Amino acid sequence: MNKIQEKFKKLGIEHAPGQEANRKNSMEDVRGPKIHEELIDFSHGDVDAFLPIPSSLDYFEKGVSDGGNQAYTEYKGSREIRKHLADKIGKFINKDINSDTNIIITPGTQGALFLAISSIITKDDKVAIVQPDYFANRKIVEFLEGEIIPISLNYQNETRKSGLNIEELEDAFKSGVKLFVFSNPNNPTGVIYSSKEIKNIRELAKEYNVKVIADELYSRQVFDENHYEHLFTSDEVDTENIITIMGPSKTESLSGYRLGVAFGSEEIIKRMEKLQAIVSLRTAGYNQTVLKSWFTEPDNWLINRVKDHQNIRNDLVNKFRKSNSFKVRPTEAGSYLFPEIKNLNISVESLAEILQSQANVIVTPGTEFGEQFSNSFRINFSQDREKANEGADRIIEIVSRYTN
Amino acid sequence: MNKIQEKFKKLGIEHAPGQEANRKNSMEDVRGPKIHEELIDFSHGDVDAFLPIPSSLDYFEKGVSDGGNQAYTEYKGSREIRKHLADKIGKFINKDINSDTNIIITPGTQGALFLAISSIITKDDKVAIVQPDYFANRKIVEFLEGEIIPISLNYQNETRKSGLNIEELEDAFKSGVKLFVFSNPNNPTGVIYSSKEIKNIRELAKEYNVKVIADELYSRQVFDENHYEHLFTSDEVDTENIITIMGPSKTESLSGYRLGVAFGSEEIIKRMEKLQAIVSLRTAGYNQTVLKSWFTEPDNWLINRVKDHQNIRNDLVNKFRKSNSFKVRPTEAGSYLFPEIKNLNISVESLAEILQSQANVIVTPGTEFGEQFSNSFRINFSQDREKANEGADRIIEIVSRYTN
Repeated sequence: MNKIQEKFKKLGIEHAPGQEANRKNSMEDVRGPKIHEELIDFSHGDVDAFLPIPSSLDYFEKGVSDGGNQAYTEYKGSREIRKHLADKIGKFINKDINSDTNIIITPGTQGALFLAISSIITKDDKVAIVQPDYFANRKIVEFLEGEIIPISLNYQNETRKSGLNIEELEDAFKSGVKLFVFSNPNNPTGVIYSSKEIKNIRELAKEYNVKVIADELYSRQVFDENHYEHLFTSDEVDTENIITIMGPSKTESLSGYRLGVAFGSEEIIKRMEKLQAIVSLRTAGYNQTVLKSWFTEPDNWLINRVKDHQNIRNDLVNKFRKSNSFKVRPTEAGSYLFPEIKNLNISVESLAEILQSQANVIVTPGTEFGEQFSNSFRINFSQDREKANEGADRIIEIVSRYTN
Repeated sequence: MNKIQEKFKKLGIEHAPGQEANRKNSMEDVRGPKIHEELIDFSHGDVDAFLPIPSSLDYFEKGVSDGGNQAYTEYKGSREIRKHLADKIGKFINKDINSDTNIIITPGTQGALFLAISSIITKDDKVAIVQPDYFANRKIVEFLEGEIIPISLNYQNETRKSGLNIEELEDAFKSGVKLFVFSNPNNPTGVIYSSKEIKNIRELAKEYNVKVIADELYSRQVFDENHYEHLFTSDEVDTENIITIMGPSKTESLSGYRLGVAFGSEEIIKRMEKLQAIVSLRTAGYNQTVLKSWFTEPDNWLINRVKDHQNIRNDLVNKFRKSNSFKVRPTEAGSYLFPEIKNLNISVESLAEILQSQANVIVTPGTEFGEQFSNSFRINFSQDREKANEGADRIIEIVSRYTN
């Protein structure tokens, strides 16, 4: 196997969300009858159940009618729209953002992550990555041939903190880590980092001069009035060390437009723009206009959306807890649950295949988030409430066939 | 300067098309009065002069109304749309394309180029690149820390060939080149590779087992009924060695949607999809639908568009030739002209800055395409015909002040 083949071998996408159509079902260990029902796809949110921001398509059409001016923006995005974003996000996180130099529009938060990590590290650089956390963090570092230093997250704790192992993080920073990437709320567990944990991260980043990328994609969807602390929002922070990522693909259901934003360090944003120029030139020009619908949603639109998700979370957590086969920490923010199955007697990848073939339910196996999560699976409960409940019932039924 | 800073230093975008708003005008050598007229931007085509395919927005809206199904496609793009593309492009190039395994939808042809090059080479691999050719080819290789082997193109020849130096190419292949990237028609000169040249490239690729990326972005806009030979269209070709790139951003004016396609080698397409998954997940779902308007334009739409561009080319070539300060080969396909200025007595970057500040005309300096093109500039003449003529007049006037 040559170098490039080796490099791509690490980038498996067979079990990645959205790729289930390509799964080769190798499972023979079928126990019990098929459940013949409608597909329930927990691998991502259902934008037909939670519709995009009402004005989004109108803004798109406005972009098209603006013509060449909107088709060919600067690589980092339209000046006017960056202004809108810097203003609105600045108010949201309570810190000023310079729209000329400190913000870039990207093709989704995935685009922002790729550009940001690629602008900070190169071959052999060390990167601290939380386990579990969003699988693309790891894959991007592997593509860039960096070295991953795992940091554990003891998320199954009973207190109001994420459970980040701060000692491990400091040891990693001491050992010469260049970059720390983490999502807050954590994907897949839905836990929020406490103010103290965020303060610790800020201090360590400053002390050891480590760059930090905070993926705050779900930070507008906080339940139970939990406190959420943005990494960037502090006078103590060294702004040149930090990049924050946000986007309207999840809570706001705009994933079909591929829109994201990164803000923070001027130097890194500058590199990200240079890289954007050769990766995809720019976020699709007309699509950028849709960002004007973000943070300007109708009154109560966001409040109701969060409430609706909180209700579904309650339903599912209750169901899983009642069954006794699962250990699950309730989501504090975002749309993910990451239940752990007690006494599972097949691999979780096989379980995911069986759920799909026998019960028409798609989940993401825990091993996508780290090898050790071999008894866990992730579901995105941004679904029609009734379907979400029905899906949980099917999972519980199938799981009962494969536990001791 | 650390490793990552060095890496990004090579990726300058100050003189890249579309970034002119950020040019720092350092030029003091002003000769003669300002020409106070409307902006004419030759750095890219004007989609307000040549409008997008008429049905494009309708298709987009159809995509949005399809909802979740279209928002979350496979990473390589919607199966149905890949089918459409494989069918239509297969007929266009007269060769079958398997829509399941041999084609991927990308965010523009820029996206396709980045994914393809990144899926073929890694650090220290050698890449043969034509000079002059599209500047991003070089920049992507530099980002990946590959080694560039320049191949000269003697485009100022009087015969019906591109002027590719085949001996240099074979020497490069012999020396262990992994990949050869070229655009056909060539960007910036607009010359078409002859059938014999294409045949040579196919044979050399096979003999030395070198991968070839053919950027055929402008292959639908061929003038004077010139013969155009697609690299992929031959029974002799080793299909696993070849990736072809196309897209509707130029002739079809759909740049604002960021759409492209790559087809060819199954193994490379597979890697490109894995990479797409971490670079931007997928081409924006709703945008993909717009590809259904491509290759299904109204009767005569394309014929008229090509004819209109040919007329503008004729106007401009006549103007530049009449002035005697320029050497210019007429565009054979595409919308670019690459005039060489005789006896220019300032740098072409300074000339570009002066053209912008003194005559409100934007051109791309030749040095973007290779250091040696220090007397040339590129213009994209996909403009309103009258404005294009007016712009050429202004260029000729300003150039007359800076030539011996």
